Amino acid sequence: MAVGLSEPVDILPVAGIKLASVAAGIKKNGKDDMVVFIIDEHASCAASFTQNAFCAAPVTLAKKNLKQAPPRALLINSGNANAGTGDTGMQNAVQSCQWLAQELNCSAEQVLPFSTGVIGEQLPMDVMQSGIKQVVQNPLEDNWLLAAKGIMTTDTVAKAVSRTLIIDGSKVTLSGIAKGSGMICPNMATMLSFIATDANIEENYLQQCLSDAVAISFNAITVDGDTSTNDACVLIATAKAGNKPLNNSSANAGTFVTALNEICQQLAQTIVRDAEGATKYVTVSVQLAKSIVEAKNVAYTIAHSPLVKTALFASDPNWGRILAAVGRAGIEQLDISCINIFLGDVCIVRNGGVDADYQEEKGQAVMNEEEISITVELHRGDDAATIWTSDLSHEYVRINSEYRS
Amino acid sequence: MAVGLSEPVDILPVAGIKLASVAAGIKKNGKDDMVVFIIDEHASCAASFTQNAFCAAPVTLAKKNLKQAPPRALLINSGNANAGTGDTGMQNAVQSCQWLAQELNCSAEQVLPFSTGVIGEQLPMDVMQSGIKQVVQNPLEDNWLLAAKGIMTTDTVAKAVSRTLIIDGSKVTLSGIAKGSGMICPNMATMLSFIATDANIEENYLQQCLSDAVAISFNAITVDGDTSTNDACVLIATAKAGNKPLNNSSANAGTFVTALNEICQQLAQTIVRDAEGATKYVTVSVQLAKSIVEAKNVAYTIAHSPLVKTALFASDPNWGRILAAVGRAGIEQLDISCINIFLGDVCIVRNGGVDADYQEEKGQAVMNEEEISITVELHRGDDAATIWTSDLSHEYVRINSEYRS
Repeated sequence: MAVGLSEPVDILPVAGIKLASVAAGIKKNGKDDMVVFIIDEHASCAASFTQNAFCAAPVTLAKKNLKQAPPRALLINSGNANAGTGDTGMQNAVQSCQWLAQELNCSAEQVLPFSTGVIGEQLPMDVMQSGIKQVVQNPLEDNWLLAAKGIMTTDTVAKAVSRTLIIDGSKVTLSGIAKGSGMICPNMATMLSFIATDANIEENYLQQCLSDAVAISFNAITVDGDTSTNDACVLIATAKAGNKPLNNSSANAGTFVTALNEICQQLAQTIVRDAEGATKYVTVSVQLAKSIVEAKNVAYTIAHSPLVKTALFASDPNWGRILAAVGRAGIEQLDISCINIFLGDVCIVRNGGVDADYQEEKGQAVMNEEEISITVELHRGDDAATIWTSDLSHEYVRINSEYRS
Repeated sequence: MAVGLSEPVDILPVAGIKLASVAAGIKKNGKDDMVVFIIDEHASCAASFTQNAFCAAPVTLAKKNLKQAPPRALLINSGNANAGTGDTGMQNAVQSCQWLAQELNCSAEQVLPFSTGVIGEQLPMDVMQSGIKQVVQNPLEDNWLLAAKGIMTTDTVAKAVSRTLIIDGSKVTLSGIAKGSGMICPNMATMLSFIATDANIEENYLQQCLSDAVAISFNAITVDGDTSTNDACVLIATAKAGNKPLNNSSANAGTFVTALNEICQQLAQTIVRDAEGATKYVTVSVQLAKSIVEAKNVAYTIAHSPLVKTALFASDPNWGRILAAVGRAGIEQLDISCINIFLGDVCIVRNGGVDADYQEEKGQAVMNEEEISITVELHRGDDAATIWTSDLSHEYVRINSEYRS
């Protein structure tokens, strides 16, 4: 039930990155479940991880490895999250990195592990071992789409985006993949997303670009308010494009930042369009807030409300539920007589009460659309935030009550 | 789909309180939708209201009237919340109080108005006027159960409880009713609940008793995390029982407090048992926390997680979802190696990882029950909190996507 999504096409190779995907046997349905990124020497790498205190073993290990050596490979499995698995889970993550490192003649610290799937089950290590031997057989620069498919769990559509740009006269490519459609409310991180560019970028600046991009993309989406234990986003710059190293004083930095932000927002929005059971794609925008934190807080309160989400599913312009969500968002000294609320372009609430010109037919027409925007004006300041979310459907309940059966 | 609920019986009259309920015509289904409580002189009254900034007109007016004069009547309508209705909504609430005051020969400030139902529609004032004339015809002390039915909206079972106790040798009665099964996450207030006693209690102390009782009852339940615009809880003491006035230095105060806490907890739990679409009744207890706020925060994060709630609906011991919710509850410097999690009496997580003795069959046996407890030990301090919640079922989505159709 993806909203306005089709299979990605024209995902461009990035010089210095080879990918492969195989069906190792972790997923019971026989689909691809193991992906490697093989990274040439001299690449830079930035990453952003889940803030969930119960972060998975691979997240802990990837953070640690990233500090020790420049990564030469990403090892990603789907079908098993290796989260809540204690010491054994950590040993299994370490062992998996060692196996891949042996195949690639690098150190185990140069492999970053990522897992996604069911929480609380140990990785099947015999399957991991044979999968790793298999996945290194034929890595290709052109395997981005295969990799996007290999990291899927409940996703119904693969998620991948590319951009090209010119920096210092050099043609630069930026490609990324992502997965995720449930347990989505990233907190300073994201569901799994892997982005690579052949641009030459200083590593500190690369991390800054990624953190800024994540704040307005992966950290601005929610499906169900549940922050995963395994969220991670990695940005690799292989430096093959030949441009002068970019940093925050480069004249061309803005060109790269714009393209990266677009890639991240498009991947993040794709996750919401493919949200579990989604029938609506909803943009929630809060304007004229005292701070960005306040604006995001109101936006998330609306986006997480089961009553708002079921009204969206029903195409019901039941705006009282939006109003109630704004009212419980915990804003100190909120003057409701200053609040306006819009459904699409239709003003439903003006100065805290139903707009004099509002007619149910106008609200109904907006709600009948697949893509809906909700805008709240607080009139408390100049800050704003926009987030993206989905509705709460029968299909969401079905998927999540049957996921392990 | 109420869990372990049957129609209340033996709801005892409270001397000094007469009640009546009629079908005024606000609800389209012809069921009762207007209730009055008529209160004798010399009664004390305490109340607790929603903290939603978009509180409804009747909430604003009831708060104001309560400060001005001792209440002689409560006027409650179901089927229309009179919320998000602006100045007209406030005028309609004032007018309704005036009409009832005329019938009862008291001042309009001595009437407290309450409304529950759809948000954003104006009260039908002709229906209100004729209903008020009708509802005052035959109020009786024995009408508690009728009143409990008259305030229902999506509730499937009426909610009422009574207790008797002896204070200073006087027999004291305590009776209460409540309504609510969706938009339930009271914040320092409750869904509609009306409780009366014939005990003689000093008004300041009455408010203290109510606030304390609400904190561990109505403020400890959640169905969907949505705090209503109309929550209110009223406690009336008519002083007819003949006991010496109770205050916080009375030897017998504890007897009354215990009975009041029991009434409030039972009414609150009844709301959860009758939660929209509920198939499970779930107790979430967080132990050994640094503070009560921290314990409640973790408990609510679990109780609001759509993934935990759908796993409960599926009777799926998918404890990874509970663990992920604990991990995203935002506790500073949480040491996950100190955390234990129990499903019923079964330890699923010990020291942050799956318990060595855990077997899926044991977790499954607990999840198969209709009544389930989830206990989390944080080992950070000595504080604790217990809250009650329901699961997220297909029926919840159906009810809330069809509510206005």
